[in-house]
Amino acid sequence: VAERVAHFKQDVWSIFTPLAAQLKAVNLGQGFMNFPPPDFVRKAAISAINTNDCNQYSHPKGRLRAREALAKSYSPLFDRTLDPETEVITSAGANEGLYAIFAGFLDDGDEVILIEPFFDQYIANITMNGGVPVYVPLRPHGDTNKIISSRDWKLDINELRSKITPKTKILVFNTPHNPVGKVFSREEMLEIAQVVQEFNLLLISDEVYDRLYYKPDVHERIATLPGLWDRTITVGSGGKTFGTTGWRVGWSIGPKHLIKTVLAAQTRIVFCVNSPLQEAIAISIEEAEAHGYYEENIALYEQRRDKLCKALSDAGLPYTIPQGSYFILANTKRINIPEDYEYPEILLNRPKDFKVCYWMAKEIGVVAIPPSEFYSEENRHLGEDYARFAFCKTDETLEAAAKALLKLK
Amino acid sequence: VAERVAHFKQDVWSIFTPLAAQLKAVNLGQGFMNFPPPDFVRKAAISAINTNDCNQYSHPKGRLRAREALAKSYSPLFDRTLDPETEVITSAGANEGLYAIFAGFLDDGDEVILIEPFFDQYIANITMNGGVPVYVPLRPHGDTNKIISSRDWKLDINELRSKITPKTKILVFNTPHNPVGKVFSREEMLEIAQVVQEFNLLLISDEVYDRLYYKPDVHERIATLPGLWDRTITVGSGGKTFGTTGWRVGWSIGPKHLIKTVLAAQTRIVFCVNSPLQEAIAISIEEAEAHGYYEENIALYEQRRDKLCKALSDAGLPYTIPQGSYFILANTKRINIPEDYEYPEILLNRPKDFKVCYWMAKEIGVVAIPPSEFYSEENRHLGEDYARFAFCKTDETLEAAAKALLKLK
Ligand SMILES: CSCCC(=O)C(=O)O
Ligand SMILES: CSCCC(=O)C(=O)O
Repeated sequence: VAERVAHFKQDVWSIFTPLAAQLKAVNLGQGFMNFPPPDFVRKAAISAINTNDCNQYSHPKGRLRAREALAKSYSPLFDRTLDPETEVITSAGANEGLYAIFAGFLDDGDEVILIEPFFDQYIANITMNGGVPVYVPLRPHGDTNKIISSRDWKLDINELRSKITPKTKILVFNTPHNPVGKVFSREEMLEIAQVVQEFNLLLISDEVYDRLYYKPDVHERIATLPGLWDRTITVGSGGKTFGTTGWRVGWSIGPKHLIKTVLAAQTRIVFCVNSPLQEAIAISIEEAEAHGYYEENIALYEQRRDKLCKALSDAGLPYTIPQGSYFILANTKRINIPEDYEYPEILLNRPKDFKVCYWMAKEIGVVAIPPSEFYSEENRHLGEDYARFAFCKTDETLEAAAKALLKLK
Repeated sequence: VAERVAHFKQDVWSIFTPLAAQLKAVNLGQGFMNFPPPDFVRKAAISAINTNDCNQYSHPKGRLRAREALAKSYSPLFDRTLDPETEVITSAGANEGLYAIFAGFLDDGDEVILIEPFFDQYIANITMNGGVPVYVPLRPHGDTNKIISSRDWKLDINELRSKITPKTKILVFNTPHNPVGKVFSREEMLEIAQVVQEFNLLLISDEVYDRLYYKPDVHERIATLPGLWDRTITVGSGGKTFGTTGWRVGWSIGPKHLIKTVLAAQTRIVFCVNSPLQEAIAISIEEAEAHGYYEENIALYEQRRDKLCKALSDAGLPYTIPQGSYFILANTKRINIPEDYEYPEILLNRPKDFKVCYWMAKEIGVVAIPPSEFYSEENRHLGEDYARFAFCKTDETLEAAAKALLKLK
């Protein structure tokens, strides 16, 4: 076994998703939809399956139609005319896109700054490619025993600066933010942009929830801030955008000199992205605006968010109201579990929130994700009083969760 | 740019596939089908798209249905009852499967023995994970200016032994072989198995063409030889098996202690394999035998092989008759190109066979792949007198190629 994987614990997703099934608990854990993709998206996939060349290898850059659709739909959002030949690449999910970026840019010992909490896969994606993660937390301001806004989670820019060394190469930024739900403001992004330029960093902007933000917030692109285009790669996700997390079609957008390197790495990792679903995402992007899909989808998610907020309120769990994404971080401090409660072996050496999430799954019947997994070892305690609930679920599921959560009262 | 990718030249696939399109040449280059997948396979994909949970994340190991179908169909071929929970894993194409295996097992400086010629991606898959490829060639015996059999390409087992050092960790084996078309005999495999055991190596057996071998040959599994199961991972491909190279569904089969490590690496590289096409491959495997698919497919490929053999004979190009796979290696020594012939810039610093393949594409109208790309620098000359033709193409395409190749006479 190679050193790069020998220390991996089992990932939180393949613990809690099977657990939900096994306990027949309401699953608000892993962020996948339990409703079908929109009809126009499914139809696009079926038409791709019925098109001969869509069943064969794509170009490692991505299918032309996908790159053209992405360039066209993202150009207005990036305030520039994106070149589908050189400034857009598809990936086998946003996650593999991130992996390929780290593989393309990190040499042994290069440091990567992660803002905590963060999508757990970042760490392995970085360390498997020789990089060293360095951490700086978002901190909640205000009384976390009450309902707060994701706006109240703030980055201390001086703390960020203090983490930069001559080895710092990359800063990973994520907005709308998983698991906090924060949509960074222009002012906050300007501060970060300043640091990125000052220290000559590469910025990776994980914007996989970029079509999911709630009134009155608007999601702005950090790559459009002055001086940032040339040093930023923005990562997006077909799965998050179209409710198809299993299709594994993501993309990266950035300047030619950066995308070229992502392509070199990705060609050798997966060779190419699956063709039929990639074509289907291309068609879906082409058709989305005409269907009014993005607005309608946001409206639906706003209702889901409100439903889950109400359920948490009714259950007496304080939480952070998200400005974007489909996650809510709830404060579980007031949950008391008997000392002698028994946990499965797999959870014995895990932090407190893993145990709380197990207890909730078993005794309350609702699965959430323990967010300490989204922190470094050193800051793990910052996540231990929380549980992350996903609301990319049907009304029936959210209602069943609401009912079950009342048992917490 | 990281050192691990900085030296990559453009891959041969994304040179010659676009070139074929651009020159409107008959494309016998990259090994993809230009005919649709069988109806039952396409139907399986459409039914998966219409099944809600098939559009969401799969377990990182692979969908249960896929693992069960693989275990059931491969158990008789491996002379054992495979456990779908621990001995089978799906991958985002066989290529990503190989990448994940190398990521899981190689530490910096570990040596990996490759038998030349080999699928070009192996090198990058190994070096990106810190490994050092070490090479030993198959050598053609007999008069290569005449038609020979892929049986005549032989490994010198003493040459192989001489390449083993204390750092050797992995041997990569490939049968049916790309690009030679060789199906290794039991005797040849026993010799290799002996070396693998003697030096305590991990064996990676790339058997992506395992459903494509021609009478009177039978493809045997090296993992079934005495003592090999515990140290062998066998890699397979849905794309090769069902004519869907763009679906990116492959798999690895091996003992629990090895598959566990592949899973740890793969979870962090792609998280999971696309769900709908993975389900479709599961269904296709379940149904293949009842449709008599494997036998019928072999019969069709036998006809295609014979067509291409005849075309090469008629054109006066000697070649190696393949026992398996869908490639034919032709000897191009007799092609003489004017000294002052002009090549695109991208080919200027490439070996002779790149130039011959370009010339054939442009002047004859048929694209083939330059096999020097399948050799190490040191043995590149062994490939320079050849071109690899693929016959996973329609009769019309093979006939158009035959006609065009006559211009070589
Ligand atoms: C790697 S699977 C989970 C990804 C995701 O969407 C989540 O954060 O739940
Ligand atoms: C990496 S694409 C080419 C794979 C293949 O089938 C080939 O050898 O042509």
